[in-house]
Amino acid sequence: MRTVEWDDEKKVVKLIDQRVLPSDPPILECRTVSELIDAIQTLAVRGAPAIGVAGAFGVVLSFKESSTIEEARRKCDELKRARPTAVNLSWAIERVLAAVEDCESVDNAMEKSLDLAKRMAEEDVEINRAIGKMGAKLFEDGDRVLTHCNAGRLACVDWGTALGVIRSCHEEGKRVFVIATETRPLNQGSRITAWELMRDGIPVTLITDSSAAYLMRKGMIDKVIVGADRIVRDAVFNKIGTYSHAISAKRHGIPFYVAAPMSTFDLDHTEADIKVEERDGDELRYFKGIKNAPDGVDVLNFAFDATPLELVDAIITEKGILHPQNGRIEVDRQI
Amino acid sequence: MRTVEWDDEKKVVKLIDQRVLPSDPPILECRTVSELIDAIQTLAVRGAPAIGVAGAFGVVLSFKESSTIEEARRKCDELKRARPTAVNLSWAIERVLAAVEDCESVDNAMEKSLDLAKRMAEEDVEINRAIGKMGAKLFEDGDRVLTHCNAGRLACVDWGTALGVIRSCHEEGKRVFVIATETRPLNQGSRITAWELMRDGIPVTLITDSSAAYLMRKGMIDKVIVGADRIVRDAVFNKIGTYSHAISAKRHGIPFYVAAPMSTFDLDHTEADIKVEERDGDELRYFKGIKNAPDGVDVLNFAFDATPLELVDAIITEKGILHPQNGRIEVDRQI
Repeated sequence: MRTVEWDDEKKVVKLIDQRVLPSDPPILECRTVSELIDAIQTLAVRGAPAIGVAGAFGVVLSFKESSTIEEARRKCDELKRARPTAVNLSWAIERVLAAVEDCESVDNAMEKSLDLAKRMAEEDVEINRAIGKMGAKLFEDGDRVLTHCNAGRLACVDWGTALGVIRSCHEEGKRVFVIATETRPLNQGSRITAWELMRDGIPVTLITDSSAAYLMRKGMIDKVIVGADRIVRDAVFNKIGTYSHAISAKRHGIPFYVAAPMSTFDLDHTEADIKVEERDGDELRYFKGIKNAPDGVDVLNFAFDATPLELVDAIITEKGILHPQNGRIEVDRQI
Repeated sequence: MRTVEWDDEKKVVKLIDQRVLPSDPPILECRTVSELIDAIQTLAVRGAPAIGVAGAFGVVLSFKESSTIEEARRKCDELKRARPTAVNLSWAIERVLAAVEDCESVDNAMEKSLDLAKRMAEEDVEINRAIGKMGAKLFEDGDRVLTHCNAGRLACVDWGTALGVIRSCHEEGKRVFVIATETRPLNQGSRITAWELMRDGIPVTLITDSSAAYLMRKGMIDKVIVGADRIVRDAVFNKIGTYSHAISAKRHGIPFYVAAPMSTFDLDHTEADIKVEERDGDELRYFKGIKNAPDGVDVLNFAFDATPLELVDAIITEKGILHPQNGRIEVDRQI
């Protein structure tokens, strides 16, 4: 199945539960907005495009469980705050709410929001396919490509952004090799990226996050491609560690690419405006319940970092490839 | 007790078994060279100065268990190869063997090598104290200092190199705050550095390896200090990830210091000559037996990397502080 789906029979949001990867993931059914918030916060579903579509279906859940439009809107506000850094979640919820603004009953709003959320899920796949096709032009047969975290099929409804580009390369017959960082502290690289690439038969080698710079020094990496959680006028917010890879890539003259849908852009803001989520220190203190650091040690656990656009060679979107100029992007708002 | 000691009664090498940290470490007794090799390879004892002194005591074990000098020397050759990248191991073994060259019986060689190995253990502590005192001059009250891996008390006989400098700062009344990277894949930062600093009451905050660059961007790191496994004419070999932090420090104008005894220098060689140890991929595939990546995933697991000297602002030794010029060090071989 896809990463996020609506079940018409049960009227629930179905998710591939990514928390148990690399073991085979079960299907998680969210019947209420509060179950969906929990799924988003515990990363059962993660990845900016996937949580966007999950948020769109969450609006449907909010109408299902509310007796008034106002009550549903309050629940949607809560849902928007489930994860603060990725813009797609609030973008998707607002888009659906805007479309049902004229609805007078929750039943009607539920029906209309479901139509749109389903269309957004389809759009997400089409957009990723378009990103893949655009991005594949930047790669050559035999390229060894570093990626960080998981911007793959499981970060989207299907196909993927950064890994979607890699998939499109393979579809076109370009054999691209992926070097995946494990991506601490939650190991989305080792648990998710490696898992989904191996299932597709795409060659992947796992490294520690901090090996990337040395592999670049040894000439073992040709290009870098990552996803994005939010792109502001002067920076790309993405999983913590992205900035470090971008600095190393610049030092070694290695192209650094970001692949993301236009819905990830937030051009009303700059880096300074954005709050970066800090997550629980226990993510470093324990590994699946096993102690990995002294009791009570102080931890600083930013979930994302900001990469200034001067380090980004290209942003691959479904509408085309953007090349930041002087560390900024000025996009014609019509595209 | 100290990290490495000789037990006169039992005639064994005693080690603090660091594999179980951050749980309280038991004492490991190595009765034979082959038990010591196992202890070194499984990282029960680790850190360049500590494995140097462990190697010196290993020479004593080799005479204890051999019936001829030649047999003992063959065992020492094996011991030297236990870990290839750190120079201190072979340096220490060769130093002890040179001192017993004239001995005609294994008993006499054992006695003489034991005297020297014990003296080397004392020297190691004195050297670290001297490094600490030298290095402390480079730090100011209130500095927030990044360190990587563990170059502390448990990487040496006592006190530490990089963390020895931090300890000396505190002894002199300078309150320096440590930011410790967890140091994948074996988490020497979270398991060992955090543990030993907390026991000494030195403030420490744990971060993922890949957070360091972003913390520098946010102005949260004032200086970086690390240890070294081998310093050649143009580069410092140290735990994988060191190079990445050095690149980030340079970008942010943050001083990058290496603290290491003169025994770490290998000025007959350059970066290109040195073999970097590749360790078992299971260090990434599993965490204490728990699956952390898909079965059979390809892994590239370098244990060390090389940081070119152009990124190093100072090397703190027991003899003084060296400032590499034009990416090289030319040391008067008499110091």
